[in-house]
Amino acid sequence: MTHRILMLPGDHIGPEIVAEADRLLQALISDFGLDATLEYAHLGGCAVDAEGEPFPTSTRRLAEAADAILLGAVGGPQWDGLSRDKRPETGLLNIRSTLGLFANLRPAILFPELVDASSLRPEVVAGLDILIVRELTGGIYFGQPRGLRTRDDGIREGFNTLVYGADEIERIGRTAFRAAMQRGGRLCSVDKANVLESSELWREVMTSIAPDYPDVELSHLYVDNAAMQLVRDPKQFDVIVTGNLFGDVLSDCAAMLTGSIGMLPSASLDAAGRGLYEPVHGSAPDIAGQGVANPLATLLSVAMLLRYSLNEGALADRIEQAVGSVLAAGQRTADLAADPKRALGTRAMGDAVINAL
Amino acid sequence: MTHRILMLPGDHIGPEIVAEADRLLQALISDFGLDATLEYAHLGGCAVDAEGEPFPTSTRRLAEAADAILLGAVGGPQWDGLSRDKRPETGLLNIRSTLGLFANLRPAILFPELVDASSLRPEVVAGLDILIVRELTGGIYFGQPRGLRTRDDGIREGFNTLVYGADEIERIGRTAFRAAMQRGGRLCSVDKANVLESSELWREVMTSIAPDYPDVELSHLYVDNAAMQLVRDPKQFDVIVTGNLFGDVLSDCAAMLTGSIGMLPSASLDAAGRGLYEPVHGSAPDIAGQGVANPLATLLSVAMLLRYSLNEGALADRIEQAVGSVLAAGQRTADLAADPKRALGTRAMGDAVINAL
Ligand SMILES: CC(C)[C@H](C(=O)O)[C@@H](O)C(=O)O
Ligand SMILES: CC(C)[C@H](C(=O)O)[C@@H](O)C(=O)O
Repeated sequence: MTHRILMLPGDHIGPEIVAEADRLLQALISDFGLDATLEYAHLGGCAVDAEGEPFPTSTRRLAEAADAILLGAVGGPQWDGLSRDKRPETGLLNIRSTLGLFANLRPAILFPELVDASSLRPEVVAGLDILIVRELTGGIYFGQPRGLRTRDDGIREGFNTLVYGADEIERIGRTAFRAAMQRGGRLCSVDKANVLESSELWREVMTSIAPDYPDVELSHLYVDNAAMQLVRDPKQFDVIVTGNLFGDVLSDCAAMLTGSIGMLPSASLDAAGRGLYEPVHGSAPDIAGQGVANPLATLLSVAMLLRYSLNEGALADRIEQAVGSVLAAGQRTADLAADPKRALGTRAMGDAVINAL
Repeated sequence: MTHRILMLPGDHIGPEIVAEADRLLQALISDFGLDATLEYAHLGGCAVDAEGEPFPTSTRRLAEAADAILLGAVGGPQWDGLSRDKRPETGLLNIRSTLGLFANLRPAILFPELVDASSLRPEVVAGLDILIVRELTGGIYFGQPRGLRTRDDGIREGFNTLVYGADEIERIGRTAFRAAMQRGGRLCSVDKANVLESSELWREVMTSIAPDYPDVELSHLYVDNAAMQLVRDPKQFDVIVTGNLFGDVLSDCAAMLTGSIGMLPSASLDAAGRGLYEPVHGSAPDIAGQGVANPLATLLSVAMLLRYSLNEGALADRIEQAVGSVLAAGQRTADLAADPKRALGTRAMGDAVINAL
């Protein structure tokens, strides 16, 4: 059956990098037997501009019908003044929540050719290969009650609720244990159980399911210590599992350790393995429209999409190898180039990968 | 009037490092005209063992009467199984809250002699000098309601409340603006205003008080981006102000950038400048009792205590210069020594600083 892939270019550099993903997918369809059709819809600021909502019903219908979704990036300063329900980020949070995409997989991998792009010493990061598994549809991002109010004494306050049910913790925990089994067999669960009751339950549930995965070694770290250890010696980690907010911070920290955030893809999966795939970098308003954005994180997100949602592991390998050979040949976009004058633009980098397939 | 300093050695290496602070203070009293008396009390695990509570009433009375408090460190695995109200960390949270120590000042400074201890490239961290101002008595650490419960569907859940009043935000904001005025004039406020209403209010209040400090340049970052920027280019920051939980994570991350967390002091101040001073490292159960812990963070905490709470800036300078000259002479404890066999123990390092006064 023909796979339906929904493309959500989003805002600023989003359409530029998703255009390269489109060309890559077309090449796979015409030359490598991929059976897929591409559809397009709006998410984020462009959706607000076109349809008045950051996650319009039209997009929701296509998303629910799709086998996999590729997202560029959403957001930009021109939408910052809108009310919370109209903001691009709200569109992203709503698509995650509506589709039940609770498992956010964020690899932080250092490409050997790019070791000099890291702000860390080469020996500290060479060979880095961590997977962060972040819970994505619960915690303080979605907890009720939340809001702004004026107290009886006339003082305004803002409040949010961090809440996790044991079922939500178990679900993301099992995803992370399974991922650890397929990798180095080590799982570090990150919480703040010395202060927060929600973390106390988190730690208890992680510990309680560990016996089901005897080949995985489970450890626990407090989030402050985890941030320190990521900076001190990131290679001590294999898989990290954590809640929505801690995962937001730690996965960006881990991504930046590699120095090449323009290279890193991500997957957000539901219980059946359907998913939304996106580069971890943002919409980069400062370089939008110039044709200089690095498309590799998006092309590697296509590889994740093929592997996890379309069961096309061989095609995924092919893309990853093509990216590797392009890097090995010294081809770089401006974000990674030692000599920016010789850097490839977005389109030229897309061509390089397609030619290397 | 004679200053009353309350010494809280705490757990594991706590007594070892506070012993050096005691000897330093005695030297200042006998040889440099400091007018102070030292009293002692229990906090943390030792307080649970001795008095059944991590923050006993006897300690509270002495703390309320003191002009300043020096803490070693609290916590250790032997108390992890206790109920939350008996845990060492609860003692620490309670003393902060009871004394109204809302302003946690955590400098992250790279000592020029120690640039090789950092996991970051020398050029990225050389000269690093950041101050993190963390709100310490509010936010999710203390918000109500909180707890564990079983939902109607039989599933357990853990919940916490992140709440900030405009008054709490304004108070820590003004502390941070004043600190920025005395330093490089740049203040970065860190929040997650794109997702959390409590952060929305945080950003609004910070922005509203900025006109009172025309010489300070205020910027805002989301916490995930702040973590990335700390890793990518930490020297872009002067002062960072943030809430309790974000500050916990970012200040440890920033401390680790220096590679010498055994060197970093902290101050937790109330509205009148009374404070509790402690090294940012923990109680290090793994090296307790061996006489090898690095006492410098504690001695530098004494310097902060003299400067902020006792108005003895000249004595504070003297301690900091003594530490600088000891480092310049190549003296190192084991945590920082290139050759651990030639490292100084805790006592020998204390002697070195006292001799260099
Ligand atoms: C844009 C924002 C709402 C989002 C998040 O906080 O989840 C982003 O930082 C991410 O990590 O995907
Ligand atoms: C021990 C713990 C409760 C404490 C905190 O989270 O505040 C510690 O991490 C700190 O930063 O002082």
